[in-house]
Amino acid sequence: MTGDYIVIDWGTTNRRAWRMSAQGVPKIATKDARGVLSVPQNGYPAEIGALRDELGDLPVLAAGMVGSNRGWHEVPYVDAPAGLTDLARGCVTLADEDVVLVPGVALRGELGRGELGRGELGRGGTGAGASGSGGRADVMRGEEVQVLGAIAAGLAPGDALFCQPGTHNKWIATTDGRVTDIATAMTGELFALLRGHGILAGMLDGAVADGAAFRDGLSRGAGAKDLTVALFEVRARVLLGTLAPADAAAFASGVLIGADVGARDDLAGREVQLLAGGALADLYAAAIDQCGGRAVALDSERAFAAGIHRLWELTR
Amino acid sequence: MTGDYIVIDWGTTNRRAWRMSAQGVPKIATKDARGVLSVPQNGYPAEIGALRDELGDLPVLAAGMVGSNRGWHEVPYVDAPAGLTDLARGCVTLADEDVVLVPGVALRGELGRGELGRGELGRGGTGAGASGSGGRADVMRGEEVQVLGAIAAGLAPGDALFCQPGTHNKWIATTDGRVTDIATAMTGELFALLRGHGILAGMLDGAVADGAAFRDGLSRGAGAKDLTVALFEVRARVLLGTLAPADAAAFASGVLIGADVGARDDLAGREVQLLAGGALADLYAAAIDQCGGRAVALDSERAFAAGIHRLWELTR
Repeated sequence: MTGDYIVIDWGTTNRRAWRMSAQGVPKIATKDARGVLSVPQNGYPAEIGALRDELGDLPVLAAGMVGSNRGWHEVPYVDAPAGLTDLARGCVTLADEDVVLVPGVALRGELGRGELGRGELGRGGTGAGASGSGGRADVMRGEEVQVLGAIAAGLAPGDALFCQPGTHNKWIATTDGRVTDIATAMTGELFALLRGHGILAGMLDGAVADGAAFRDGLSRGAGAKDLTVALFEVRARVLLGTLAPADAAAFASGVLIGADVGARDDLAGREVQLLAGGALADLYAAAIDQCGGRAVALDSERAFAAGIHRLWELTR
Repeated sequence: MTGDYIVIDWGTTNRRAWRMSAQGVPKIATKDARGVLSVPQNGYPAEIGALRDELGDLPVLAAGMVGSNRGWHEVPYVDAPAGLTDLARGCVTLADEDVVLVPGVALRGELGRGELGRGELGRGGTGAGASGSGGRADVMRGEEVQVLGAIAAGLAPGDALFCQPGTHNKWIATTDGRVTDIATAMTGELFALLRGHGILAGMLDGAVADGAAFRDGLSRGAGAKDLTVALFEVRARVLLGTLAPADAAAFASGVLIGADVGARDDLAGREVQLLAGGALADLYAAAIDQCGGRAVALDSERAFAAGIHRLWELTR
């Protein structure tokens, strides 16, 4: 169809792609585990070819880790504050392939300190003051398309706080429709590491769901400065018989998610735009609620489609 | 020699043993990697036999993980508050082997909440209040002999705060020569997990020493409620060029040790009895100093010898 194009949300471990109409309506969708870690450096043209066989011989717009130093071609980060027009200006075209890659967004230390106070995503600490090395730094690749797309589509206001749980949970603050702050919490990765290795391995194989053990964990983790002490308590409580082995994973998940959400000091009475689905969305919604905030569930695929289509229009 | 005996500090991965005089003077020492994880369940009599071949056919007193559910024979924890006489009462004799096993110490949730306020080792948090599940719980096996031995030998006062860094860092508070509180921080394990697996793997192979990068990490980690965000900053800073790859390990170590030490709210002007040697002692001393405390270096082998000899006397 004239004007159709292909978009790819190409992450570290997973990949989703859609054939889009010229009006930005997703028509055919595909999803697989061909994230950048599974693609050899010289394998991208073949991957694009296979996607075109499936979705049509069309131009491609791709966002996410495909534009990182572990991906196909490194696209420099756009500095925060960054909106869709800033992202569009930072896109890199691989002309031989008819592929456009979307940049990520970087929060550089100096900016992070100057722009946002403690109340925003600044240090969740009460301790030894600001680092001597220039404030917080953070980066993202891919999440910005969802966030800015949610705003563009009217799903979220331009001044908002977003939460995108996953292996790494991204907190993203926006002002006037631009990304102004980023904080990445390694919550999911840490849970996976502890489940697979070390002293807690073998104790964390139980189910994780919102329930009494998870809520106990949230209470223990929220606002805690001693996260690694709280995690060892999983073992101590099981040994002492005050935590059922079947509840250990839910408690530990609660500690980690509680620490993640509880580090945000400004959730009271505030909406949090939650870009997640399934069980993880429920767990984060419970944590946000417990910290006094209000989770608003957003459709992340719809948000991505809106953001990527706006980028498509801006880069034509 | 009449009255000589053998003592063993038998941990998870390492084992140290000494032939002691009847007066408690270490005479022959041996050290190896035959920790409990490397000994099959039925292998302990042979291990004891080999040690007796080396050190003499003498009675044995053993402390540490050998008395855990992963060791030879599980010895129930003694509840805090616990002094040497409490430990002695909890010792278990394996008569057929002429071996005595020393118990560990447990802090049970209810006690931890009632006994100690926020100023001691209570939650290092400012968040959602005490857990609904009965306060903090913690356990240790082996460290208590060093701590109580240091007091018995006059190396440390009876009311003191001890710090024992390692794979797991133990904070131990004593009152009147008895262990009253325990907090185990999984600092070393977490560093090892992050170095070996996940998104930071390959970034943390540099040297860790007290220097500018380590101090920056301490400042970032101390008092932080957002430890996992601070850890992701290692990656962000390296990507953005504000942290040299060679400094990443020192910075990350600083973040973790800073969070560990900084979670203690009461270090200002206070002595911390540091039971550690080598590089780790230097790093923790720097962190304690930065948090306003004063690290006092103790000889952990001398402390162990004093504690185990007193137990020997009490169990005869």
